[in-house]
Amino acid sequence: MRVRKKPWAEGYINDHSDLIVTAPETQLGHWQERFEKQQPLQIEIGIGKGRFIVEMARQHPEINFLGIEIQESVIATALRQLVESGLTNVQLVETDGANVDTLFAENEVDALFLNFSDPWPKTRHAKRRLTSPNFLVHYEKVLKPAGMIQFKTDNRGLFEYSLASFNNYGLTFDEVWLDLHNSAGNEGNVETEYEQKFSAKGPIYELKAHFPTLTH
Amino acid sequence: MRVRKKPWAEGYINDHSDLIVTAPETQLGHWQERFEKQQPLQIEIGIGKGRFIVEMARQHPEINFLGIEIQESVIATALRQLVESGLTNVQLVETDGANVDTLFAENEVDALFLNFSDPWPKTRHAKRRLTSPNFLVHYEKVLKPAGMIQFKTDNRGLFEYSLASFNNYGLTFDEVWLDLHNSAGNEGNVETEYEQKFSAKGPIYELKAHFPTLTH
Repeated sequence: MRVRKKPWAEGYINDHSDLIVTAPETQLGHWQERFEKQQPLQIEIGIGKGRFIVEMARQHPEINFLGIEIQESVIATALRQLVESGLTNVQLVETDGANVDTLFAENEVDALFLNFSDPWPKTRHAKRRLTSPNFLVHYEKVLKPAGMIQFKTDNRGLFEYSLASFNNYGLTFDEVWLDLHNSAGNEGNVETEYEQKFSAKGPIYELKAHFPTLTH
Repeated sequence: MRVRKKPWAEGYINDHSDLIVTAPETQLGHWQERFEKQQPLQIEIGIGKGRFIVEMARQHPEINFLGIEIQESVIATALRQLVESGLTNVQLVETDGANVDTLFAENEVDALFLNFSDPWPKTRHAKRRLTSPNFLVHYEKVLKPAGMIQFKTDNRGLFEYSLASFNNYGLTFDEVWLDLHNSAGNEGNVETEYEQKFSAKGPIYELKAHFPTLTH
Protein backbone atom coordinates (compact mmCIF):
# COMPACT_ATOMS: atom_id res chain seq x y z
CA MET A 1 0.00 0.00 0.00
CA ARG A 2 1.48 3.33 -1.10
CA VAL A 3 0.12 6.47 0.54
CA ARG A 4 0.84 10.16 0.34
CA LYS A 5 3.69 11.43 2.52
CA LYS A 6 2.44 12.89 5.78
CA PRO A 7 4.47 15.94 6.91
CA TRP A 8 3.57 15.35 10.57
CA ALA A 9 4.70 11.71 10.58
CA GLU A 10 8.39 12.08 11.43
CA GLY A 11 7.89 14.45 14.34
CA TYR A 12 5.03 12.34 15.71
CA ILE A 13 7.16 9.21 15.60
CA ASN A 14 10.05 10.98 17.37
CA ASP A 15 7.64 12.15 20.09
CA HIS A 16 6.50 8.56 20.82
CA SER A 17 9.72 6.64 21.10
CA ASP A 18 8.17 4.71 24.00
CA LEU A 19 5.82 3.00 21.50
CA ILE A 20 7.81 2.87 18.28
CA VAL A 21 11.33 1.72 17.52
CA THR A 22 13.26 3.09 14.55
CA ALA A 23 16.64 1.41 15.20
CA PRO A 24 15.37 -2.10 15.79
CA GLU A 25 18.61 -4.07 15.49
CA THR A 26 19.60 -2.85 18.96
CA GLN A 27 16.61 -4.70 20.42
CA LEU A 28 17.53 -8.15 19.07
CA GLY A 29 16.94 -10.69 21.82
CA HIS A 30 15.55 -8.01 24.15
CA TRP A 31 12.14 -7.19 22.78
CA GLN A 32 10.37 -8.15 25.97
CA GLU A 33 12.07 -5.23 27.74
CA ARG A 34 9.98 -2.84 25.65
CA PHE A 35 6.75 -4.16 27.21
CA GLU A 36 5.18 -3.79 30.65
CA LYS A 37 4.75 -7.54 31.06
CA GLN A 38 6.81 -10.50 29.89
CA GLN A 39 4.33 -12.61 27.93
CA PRO A 40 4.17 -14.37 24.54
CA LEU A 41 5.33 -12.25 21.62
CA GLN A 42 3.37 -12.21 18.37
CA ILE A 43 4.45 -10.14 15.37
CA GLU A 44 2.75 -8.78 12.28
CA ILE A 45 4.86 -8.03 9.22
CA GLY A 46 3.36 -5.17 7.25
CA ILE A 47 0.79 -3.65 9.62
CA GLY A 48 -0.47 -0.93 7.28
CA LYS A 49 -2.57 1.52 9.28
CA GLY A 50 -2.56 -0.82 12.24
CA ARG A 51 -6.19 -1.78 12.73
CA PHE A 52 -5.44 -5.51 12.98
CA ILE A 53 -2.64 -5.34 15.52
CA VAL A 54 -4.28 -2.74 17.75
CA GLU A 55 -7.54 -4.69 17.80
CA MET A 56 -5.75 -7.99 18.42
CA ALA A 57 -3.91 -6.39 21.34
CA ARG A 58 -7.19 -5.11 22.76
CA GLN A 59 -8.70 -8.60 22.59
CA HIS A 60 -5.57 -10.35 23.90
CA PRO A 61 -4.04 -8.49 26.85
CA GLU A 62 -2.16 -11.71 27.69
CA ILE A 63 0.00 -11.34 24.56
CA ASN A 64 2.61 -8.78 23.52
CA PHE A 65 2.27 -7.63 19.91
CA LEU A 66 4.93 -6.16 17.74
CA GLY A 67 4.02 -4.55 14.43
CA ILE A 68 6.50 -4.01 11.62
CA GLU A 69 5.94 -1.56 8.78
CA ILE A 70 8.41 0.10 6.45
CA GLN A 71 6.37 3.08 5.26
CA GLU A 72 6.65 6.04 7.61
CA SER A 73 3.41 7.75 6.65
CA VAL A 74 1.49 4.48 7.16
CA ILE A 75 3.03 3.46 10.45
CA ALA A 76 2.48 6.99 11.76
CA THR A 77 -1.26 6.43 11.35
CA ALA A 78 -0.96 3.11 13.14
CA LEU A 79 0.98 4.83 15.90
CA ARG A 80 -1.78 7.40 16.31
CA GLN A 81 -4.32 4.57 16.71
CA LEU A 82 -2.06 2.95 19.27
CA VAL A 83 -1.57 6.17 21.25
CA GLU A 84 -5.33 6.72 21.34
CA SER A 85 -5.93 3.13 22.48
CA GLY A 86 -3.80 3.49 25.60
CA LEU A 87 -2.68 -0.14 25.14
CA THR A 88 0.62 -1.17 26.68
CA ASN A 89 0.99 -4.54 24.91
CA VAL A 90 1.83 -3.22 21.43
CA GLN A 91 5.12 -1.94 20.11
CA LEU A 92 5.69 -0.72 16.58
CA VAL A 93 8.86 -1.01 14.51
CA GLU A 94 9.60 1.14 11.50
CA THR A 95 11.71 -1.12 9.33
CA ASP A 96 11.67 -3.53 6.41
CA GLY A 97 9.88 -6.73 7.42
CA ALA A 98 11.99 -8.57 4.88
CA ASN A 99 14.84 -8.39 7.39
CA VAL A 100 12.99 -10.23 10.14
CA ASP A 101 15.96 -12.52 10.74
CA THR A 102 18.13 -9.57 11.78
CA LEU A 103 15.53 -8.20 14.19
CA PHE A 104 14.93 -11.19 16.44
CA ALA A 105 16.97 -13.82 18.20
CA GLU A 106 16.23 -17.50 17.60
CA ASN A 107 12.97 -18.63 19.23
CA GLU A 108 12.14 -15.08 20.33
CA VAL A 109 8.74 -15.03 18.60
CA ASP A 110 5.61 -17.10 19.38
CA ALA A 111 3.48 -16.40 16.32
CA LEU A 112 3.60 -14.40 13.11
CA PHE A 113 0.87 -12.69 11.08
CA LEU A 114 0.98 -11.82 7.40
CA ASN A 115 -2.04 -9.85 6.21
CA PHE A 116 -2.61 -8.88 2.58
CA SER A 117 1.07 -8.90 1.75
CA ASP A 118 2.24 -7.56 -1.60
CA PRO A 119 1.37 -10.29 -4.15
CA TRP A 120 4.34 -9.59 -6.47
CA PRO A 121 2.35 -11.22 -9.27
CA LYS A 122 5.18 -11.61 -11.80
CA THR A 123 6.88 -14.99 -11.63
CA ARG A 124 10.31 -13.39 -11.70
CA HIS A 125 9.41 -11.54 -8.49
CA ALA A 126 8.24 -14.68 -6.64
CA LYS A 127 11.25 -14.51 -4.33
CA ARG A 128 9.99 -11.19 -2.97
CA ARG A 129 6.69 -12.65 -1.78
CA LEU A 130 6.70 -12.80 2.02
CA THR A 131 5.42 -16.39 1.82
CA SER A 132 8.34 -17.62 -0.31
CA PRO A 133 10.84 -20.11 1.12
CA ASN A 134 13.43 -17.31 1.35
CA PHE A 135 11.35 -15.79 4.11
CA LEU A 136 10.00 -19.00 5.61
CA VAL A 137 13.53 -19.95 6.59
CA HIS A 138 13.82 -16.67 8.52
CA TYR A 139 10.44 -17.10 10.18
CA GLU A 140 11.36 -20.60 11.27
CA LYS A 141 14.54 -19.28 12.83
CA VAL A 142 12.93 -16.53 14.90
CA LEU A 143 9.80 -18.50 15.82
CA LYS A 144 9.72 -20.98 18.65
CA PRO A 145 9.49 -24.66 17.63
CA ALA A 146 6.00 -25.38 16.28
CA GLY A 147 5.59 -21.61 15.86
CA MET A 148 2.39 -20.52 14.14
CA ILE A 149 1.94 -18.43 10.98
CA GLN A 150 -1.43 -16.94 10.11
CA PHE A 151 -1.72 -15.61 6.58
CA LYS A 152 -4.64 -13.74 4.99
CA THR A 153 -4.99 -12.42 1.48
CA ASP A 154 -7.60 -11.62 -1.14
CA ASN A 155 -5.13 -12.37 -3.93
CA ARG A 156 -5.91 -15.75 -5.43
CA GLY A 157 -2.57 -16.18 -7.16
CA LEU A 158 -0.65 -15.35 -4.00
CA PHE A 159 -2.75 -17.78 -1.98
CA GLU A 160 -2.27 -20.60 -4.50
CA TYR A 161 1.47 -19.94 -4.43
CA SER A 162 1.55 -19.75 -0.64
CA LEU A 163 -0.34 -23.01 -0.09
CA ALA A 164 2.27 -24.81 -2.18
CA SER A 165 5.17 -22.87 -0.69
CA PHE A 166 4.14 -23.55 2.94
CA ASN A 167 3.45 -27.19 2.14
CA ASN A 168 6.71 -27.71 0.27
CA TYR A 169 8.63 -26.13 3.14
CA GLY A 170 7.17 -28.68 5.55
CA LEU A 171 4.69 -26.52 7.46
CA THR A 172 1.65 -28.30 8.89
CA PHE A 173 -1.72 -26.80 7.98
CA ASP A 174 -4.07 -26.19 10.91
CA GLU A 175 -6.87 -24.34 9.12
CA VAL A 176 -7.59 -23.39 5.52
CA TRP A 177 -10.42 -21.00 4.62
CA LEU A 178 -11.24 -20.20 1.01
CA ASP A 179 -13.98 -17.70 1.80
CA LEU A 180 -13.21 -16.63 5.33
CA HIS A 181 -16.03 -14.12 5.72
CA ASN A 182 -18.61 -16.77 4.83
CA SER A 183 -17.13 -19.52 6.99
CA ALA A 184 -17.02 -20.76 10.54
CA GLY A 185 -13.41 -19.52 10.39
CA ASN A 186 -14.65 -15.93 10.56
CA GLU A 187 -15.47 -16.26 14.25
CA GLY A 188 -12.90 -14.16 16.06
CA ASN A 189 -11.49 -12.84 12.78
CA VAL A 190 -9.98 -9.38 13.21
CA GLU A 191 -10.19 -7.40 9.99
CA THR A 192 -7.53 -5.12 8.59
CA GLU A 193 -8.46 -1.76 7.03
CA TYR A 194 -7.81 -3.26 3.61
CA GLU A 195 -10.01 -6.26 4.39
CA GLN A 196 -12.90 -4.05 5.48
CA LYS A 197 -12.64 -2.16 2.23
CA PHE A 198 -12.18 -5.00 -0.25
CA SER A 199 -13.86 -8.11 1.14
CA ALA A 200 -17.07 -7.33 -0.77
CA LYS A 201 -15.16 -7.73 -4.05
CA GLY A 202 -14.24 -11.37 -3.62
CA PRO A 203 -13.27 -14.06 -1.13
CA ILE A 204 -10.72 -13.57 1.65
CA TYR A 205 -8.39 -16.57 1.93
CA GLU A 206 -6.75 -17.63 5.18
CA LEU A 207 -4.18 -20.24 6.13
CA LYS A 208 -3.08 -21.08 9.66
CA ALA A 209 -0.05 -23.34 9.80
CA HIS A 210 2.85 -24.22 12.06
CA PHE A 211 6.46 -25.17 11.62
CA PRO A 212 7.72 -28.62 12.59
CA THR A 213 8.50 -29.12 16.27
CA LEU A 214 12.08 -30.15 15.50
CA THR A 215 14.45 -27.49 16.75
CA HIS A 216 16.47 -25.75 14.09
CA MET B 1 -24.54 -38.81 -8.05
CA ARG B 2 -27.70 -40.89 -7.87
CA VAL B 3 -29.40 -41.70 -11.15
CA ARG B 4 -32.43 -43.67 -12.16
CA LYS B 5 -31.95 -47.40 -12.62
CA LYS B 6 -31.37 -48.34 -16.24
CA PRO B 7 -33.03 -51.66 -17.15
CA TRP B 8 -30.54 -52.28 -19.97
CA ALA B 9 -27.46 -51.75 -17.79
CA GLU B 10 -26.91 -55.24 -16.42
CA GLY B 11 -27.22 -57.00 -19.76
CA TYR B 12 -25.00 -54.44 -21.49
CA ILE B 13 -22.30 -54.87 -18.85
CA ASN B 14 -22.45 -58.66 -19.20
CA ASP B 15 -22.09 -58.32 -22.96
CA HIS B 16 -18.86 -56.28 -22.62
CA SER B 17 -16.81 -58.25 -20.15
CA ASP B 18 -13.72 -57.45 -22.24
CA LEU B 19 -14.00 -53.80 -21.14
CA ILE B 20 -15.53 -54.01 -17.67
CA VAL B 21 -14.68 -56.09 -14.64
CA THR B 22 -17.30 -56.96 -12.04
CA ALA B 23 -15.23 -59.32 -9.83
CA PRO B 24 -12.16 -57.11 -9.49
CA GLU B 25 -10.39 -58.85 -6.59
CA THR B 26 -9.30 -61.60 -8.98
CA GLN B 27 -7.27 -59.03 -10.93
CA LEU B 28 -5.14 -57.84 -7.99
CA GLY B 29 -1.56 -57.50 -9.19
CA HIS B 30 -2.56 -58.45 -12.74
CA TRP B 31 -4.36 -55.42 -14.10
CA GLN B 32 -1.90 -54.95 -16.95
CA GLU B 33 -3.10 -58.26 -18.44
CA ARG B 34 -6.44 -56.62 -19.19
CA PHE B 35 -4.80 -54.13 -21.58
CA GLU B 36 -3.30 -54.44 -25.04
CA LYS B 37 -0.04 -52.78 -23.98
CA GLN B 38 1.91 -52.77 -20.75
CA GLN B 39 2.26 -49.08 -19.88
CA PRO B 40 1.72 -46.83 -16.85
CA LEU B 41 -1.56 -47.38 -15.03
CA GLN B 42 -3.64 -44.43 -13.88
CA ILE B 43 -6.94 -44.85 -12.04
CA GLU B 44 -9.99 -42.70 -11.41
CA ILE B 45 -12.15 -43.43 -8.39
CA GLY B 46 -15.75 -42.50 -9.08
CA ILE B 47 -15.89 -42.03 -12.84
CA GLY B 48 -19.57 -41.09 -13.09
CA LYS B 49 -20.62 -41.21 -16.73
CA GLY B 50 -17.01 -41.54 -17.81
CA ARG B 51 -16.33 -38.39 -19.83
CA PHE B 52 -13.07 -37.64 -18.00
CA ILE B 53 -11.47 -41.07 -18.24
CA VAL B 54 -12.49 -41.71 -21.85
CA GLU B 55 -11.20 -38.30 -22.94
CA MET B 56 -7.98 -38.71 -20.94
CA ALA B 57 -7.43 -42.08 -22.62
CA ARG B 58 -7.98 -40.53 -26.02
CA GLN B 59 -5.38 -37.84 -25.31
CA HIS B 60 -2.90 -40.23 -23.68
CA PRO B 61 -2.56 -43.47 -25.68
CA GLU B 62 0.73 -44.06 -23.81
CA ILE B 63 -1.15 -44.65 -20.53
CA ASN B 64 -3.56 -47.36 -19.39
CA PHE B 65 -6.60 -46.01 -17.55
CA LEU B 66 -8.78 -47.84 -15.11
CA GLY B 67 -12.07 -46.32 -14.00
CA ILE B 68 -13.88 -47.38 -10.84
CA GLU B 69 -17.56 -46.70 -10.21
CA ILE B 70 -19.99 -48.39 -7.85
CA GLN B 71 -23.31 -47.41 -9.45
CA GLU B 72 -24.34 -49.81 -12.19
CA SER B 73 -26.60 -47.45 -14.10
CA VAL B 74 -23.84 -44.80 -14.17
CA ILE B 75 -20.98 -47.05 -15.16
CA ALA B 76 -23.17 -48.56 -17.89
CA THR B 77 -23.32 -45.12 -19.53
CA ALA B 78 -19.54 -44.79 -19.19
CA LEU B 79 -19.18 -48.23 -20.74
CA ARG B 80 -21.30 -47.17 -23.70
CA GLN B 81 -19.03 -44.16 -24.25
CA LEU B 82 -16.02 -46.43 -24.05
CA VAL B 83 -17.46 -48.95 -26.54
CA GLU B 84 -18.24 -46.14 -28.96
CA SER B 85 -14.73 -44.71 -28.61
CA GLY B 86 -13.01 -47.89 -29.71
CA LEU B 87 -10.20 -47.17 -27.21
CA THR B 88 -8.14 -50.10 -25.96
CA ASN B 89 -6.38 -48.32 -23.10
CA VAL B 90 -9.37 -48.05 -20.74
CA GLN B 91 -10.84 -50.69 -18.47
CA LEU B 92 -13.80 -50.13 -16.17
CA VAL B 93 -14.44 -51.71 -12.80
CA GLU B 94 -17.84 -51.90 -11.15
CA THR B 95 -17.03 -51.82 -7.47
CA ASP B 96 -16.74 -49.56 -4.42
CA GLY B 97 -13.73 -47.27 -4.80
CA ALA B 98 -13.49 -47.17 -1.02
CA ASN B 99 -11.90 -50.62 -1.22
CA VAL B 100 -9.03 -49.55 -3.44
CA ASP B 101 -6.52 -51.29 -1.19
CA THR B 102 -8.10 -54.68 -1.92
CA LEU B 103 -8.10 -54.13 -5.68
CA PHE B 104 -4.44 -53.42 -6.34
CA ALA B 105 -1.08 -54.78 -5.30
CA GLU B 106 1.49 -52.44 -3.73
CA ASN B 107 3.01 -50.03 -6.26
CA GLU B 108 0.68 -51.24 -9.03
CA VAL B 109 -0.70 -47.76 -9.79
CA ASP B 110 1.13 -44.73 -11.23
CA ALA B 111 -1.40 -41.96 -10.59
CA LEU B 112 -4.86 -41.50 -9.13
CA PHE B 113 -7.68 -39.12 -9.99
CA LEU B 114 -10.50 -38.00 -7.72
CA ASN B 115 -13.08 -35.80 -9.46
CA PHE B 116 -16.01 -34.19 -7.66
CA SER B 117 -16.09 -36.81 -4.95
CA ASP B 118 -19.00 -36.88 -2.51
CA PRO B 119 -18.31 -34.00 -0.06
CA TRP B 120 -19.92 -35.71 2.97
CA PRO B 121 -20.40 -32.25 4.50
CA LYS B 122 -21.23 -33.34 8.04
CA THR B 123 -18.21 -33.44 10.34
CA ARG B 124 -19.22 -36.84 11.67
CA HIS B 125 -18.97 -38.20 8.11
CA ALA B 126 -15.48 -36.77 7.49
CA LYS B 127 -14.01 -40.28 7.52
CA ARG B 128 -16.05 -41.17 4.44
CA ARG B 129 -14.50 -38.40 2.32
CA LEU B 130 -12.22 -39.95 -0.27
CA THR B 131 -9.53 -37.39 0.68
CA SER B 132 -9.46 -38.37 4.36
CA PRO B 133 -6.36 -40.02 5.84
CA ASN B 134 -8.26 -43.35 5.98
CA PHE B 135 -8.12 -43.43 2.20
CA LEU B 136 -4.78 -41.68 1.74
CA VAL B 137 -3.10 -44.60 3.48
CA HIS B 138 -4.63 -46.96 0.90
CA TYR B 139 -3.67 -44.73 -2.02
CA GLU B 140 -0.11 -44.54 -0.76
CA LYS B 141 0.03 -48.34 -0.59
CA VAL B 142 -1.17 -49.01 -4.14
CA LEU B 143 0.65 -46.06 -5.73
CA LYS B 144 4.29 -46.20 -6.71
CA PRO B 145 6.67 -44.12 -4.57
CA ALA B 146 6.13 -40.41 -5.31
CA GLY B 147 2.78 -41.41 -6.86
CA MET B 148 0.59 -38.52 -7.95
CA ILE B 149 -2.96 -37.65 -6.88
CA GLN B 150 -5.01 -35.13 -8.83
CA PHE B 151 -8.14 -33.92 -7.09
CA LYS B 152 -10.86 -31.62 -8.44
CA THR B 153 -14.00 -30.37 -6.74
CA ASP B 154 -16.40 -27.46 -6.73
CA ASN B 155 -17.15 -27.98 -3.05
CA ARG B 156 -15.34 -25.36 -1.01
CA GLY B 157 -15.65 -27.17 2.31
CA LEU B 158 -14.32 -30.40 0.84
CA PHE B 159 -11.40 -28.59 -0.74
CA GLU B 160 -10.50 -26.79 2.49
CA TYR B 161 -10.63 -30.12 4.30
CA SER B 162 -8.59 -31.87 1.61
CA LEU B 163 -5.81 -29.27 1.51
CA ALA B 164 -5.30 -29.77 5.25
CA SER B 165 -5.72 -33.55 5.03
CA PHE B 166 -3.19 -33.99 2.19
CA ASN B 167 -0.76 -31.62 3.90
CA ASN B 168 -1.09 -33.27 7.31
CA TYR B 169 -0.53 -36.68 5.71
CA GLY B 170 2.77 -35.51 4.27
CA LEU B 171 1.88 -35.16 0.60
CA THR B 172 3.84 -32.57 -1.39
CA PHE B 173 1.76 -30.06 -3.31
CA ASP B 174 2.72 -29.63 -6.97
CA GLU B 175 -0.10 -27.33 -8.11
CA VAL B 176 -3.02 -25.61 -6.40
CA TRP B 177 -5.76 -23.87 -8.41
CA LEU B 178 -8.55 -21.99 -6.69
CA ASP B 179 -10.41 -21.11 -9.87
CA LEU B 180 -9.17 -23.65 -12.36
CA HIS B 181 -11.28 -22.51 -15.31
CA ASN B 182 -9.89 -18.98 -15.04
CA SER B 183 -6.28 -20.00 -14.54
CA ALA B 184 -3.22 -21.11 -16.43
CA GLY B 185 -3.95 -24.48 -14.79
CA ASN B 186 -6.89 -24.96 -17.15
CA GLU B 187 -4.59 -25.72 -20.07
CA GLY B 188 -5.02 -29.43 -20.76
CA ASN B 189 -7.82 -29.70 -18.20
CA VAL B 190 -10.23 -32.50 -19.11
CA GLU B 191 -13.71 -31.74 -17.82
CA THR B 192 -16.10 -34.23 -16.28
CA GLU B 193 -19.81 -34.15 -17.13
CA TYR B 194 -20.49 -32.64 -13.71
CA GLU B 195 -17.84 -29.98 -14.25
CA GLN B 196 -19.31 -28.98 -17.62
CA LYS B 197 -22.67 -28.56 -15.99
CA PHE B 198 -21.75 -26.75 -12.78
CA SER B 199 -18.59 -24.73 -13.40
CA ALA B 200 -20.63 -21.63 -14.24
CA LYS B 201 -22.01 -21.62 -10.68
CA GLY B 202 -18.68 -21.08 -8.93
CA PRO B 203 -14.98 -21.88 -8.95
CA ILE B 204 -13.53 -25.32 -9.65
CA TYR B 205 -10.71 -26.15 -7.24
CA GLU B 206 -7.81 -28.44 -8.13
CA LEU B 207 -4.88 -29.89 -6.22
CA LYS B 208 -2.06 -31.94 -7.70
CA ALA B 209 0.16 -33.56 -5.11
CA HIS B 210 2.46 -36.54 -4.66
CA PHE B 211 3.34 -38.91 -1.87
CA PRO B 212 6.81 -38.97 -0.36
CA THR B 213 9.40 -40.97 -2.28
CA LEU B 214 10.14 -43.16 0.74
CA THR B 215 8.96 -46.68 0.08
CA HIS B 216 6.28 -47.93 2.40
